Amino acid sequence: MSTGAFSIDQLMELAGLSVSQALYKLQPPSSGKRILIACGPGNNGGDGLVAARHLHHYGYKPTMYYPKQSKNELYQRLATQLKQLDIPFTEDFPGSAKETDHIIDAIFGFSFSGEVREPFPAVIAALRDAKGKVPVLAVDAPSSWNIETGPPEDGPGKGFMPDALVSLTAPKPLVKWFEGRHFVGGRFLGGAVAEKYGLDVPKYQGVEQIVEVPVAELKL
Amino acid sequence: MSTGAFSIDQLMELAGLSVSQALYKLQPPSSGKRILIACGPGNNGGDGLVAARHLHHYGYKPTMYYPKQSKNELYQRLATQLKQLDIPFTEDFPGSAKETDHIIDAIFGFSFSGEVREPFPAVIAALRDAKGKVPVLAVDAPSSWNIETGPPEDGPGKGFMPDALVSLTAPKPLVKWFEGRHFVGGRFLGGAVAEKYGLDVPKYQGVEQIVEVPVAELKL
Repeated sequence: MSTGAFSIDQLMELAGLSVSQALYKLQPPSSGKRILIACGPGNNGGDGLVAARHLHHYGYKPTMYYPKQSKNELYQRLATQLKQLDIPFTEDFPGSAKETDHIIDAIFGFSFSGEVREPFPAVIAALRDAKGKVPVLAVDAPSSWNIETGPPEDGPGKGFMPDALVSLTAPKPLVKWFEGRHFVGGRFLGGAVAEKYGLDVPKYQGVEQIVEVPVAELKL
Repeated sequence: MSTGAFSIDQLMELAGLSVSQALYKLQPPSSGKRILIACGPGNNGGDGLVAARHLHHYGYKPTMYYPKQSKNELYQRLATQLKQLDIPFTEDFPGSAKETDHIIDAIFGFSFSGEVREPFPAVIAALRDAKGKVPVLAVDAPSSWNIETGPPEDGPGKGFMPDALVSLTAPKPLVKWFEGRHFVGGRFLGGAVAEKYGLDVPKYQGVEQIVEVPVAELKL
């Protein structure tokens, strides 16, 4: 889908803001402030960087795992914004995952296909193994899932089922296989564009940038 | 104040979002959906363009008055985003002001000084004369007010006192003369930066991007 007149800066700001609001719905700061955010090298990781900044301002204590930092100028600025807030970066994902209240999976999203490259296989395995211990919120897609065909049949993502998913702009086909709490975020889709692409504009409330839409209620 | 690692796209998106949330606090859509937004040629007008898009998505019916449209690429994109949502643009401000439920003054802001140029004198006079008829929310500064010394002693802005003001990032010296409801918005100021500039970070609630801070409670 074309970004039309929007800049990537704008869209990523709104996407990351949506992610931060979904996390807040799942777990307000009073229920646990430590948030571990795994960021991949592309747009999904950028959404995670933006979300971290908003979460900091809401009173959370985010920690970043961002092993493949992009040379892209936008991502560099987003990372700098976090460093200016003294948000820590860790290189030990499995260790950090044992000392957090919630994990955000912002590794791979809409444009993922093919193989999971290093160092992410072990990270995705850790996300899978967090089940029942630490809740995981996935951004746009559970990392390593195929956008069209859903959960992988082998590899580290086999059996990975995050507790929650926030679909950005619109749900992707993979949500058919998703079992958990599901949000839609990115409140900038006009009615005409939605109609053109056969999408529903979900019923957002008030000034909220996200809305919970159970998978069973989606037109897929 | 430096924008640091932030792009203007990002800051304007967050500023306009704050403005839209202040308007929502003042008047939810159930109390009147028609919002007339007067945009100047610079950053203040850009904040108004962003606010209009968010207000549309909240269910309002914004109408734009934007007589001096900037050739700046960012502002052009922001205006295009509104046209893609079929948001109307008017050339008749005084006439439109008689058929609206609320007005947003996004003509001049932080960088204003000197003379009010055409066609804005009549617009500012209409804003002044709206008192008691249609509420006005000013963005960052009541248009034509001096940032340091407040209300002008003559000209069309003499006697202009909007009903509400949303200060972006931090209140400006002119708020000492402001009488009305006062909000602070733009939730991206870190504690260290705030300390450096001697600013208070206001106590935002939840995921809100604005907070009401009565002028009497400000450290000025």
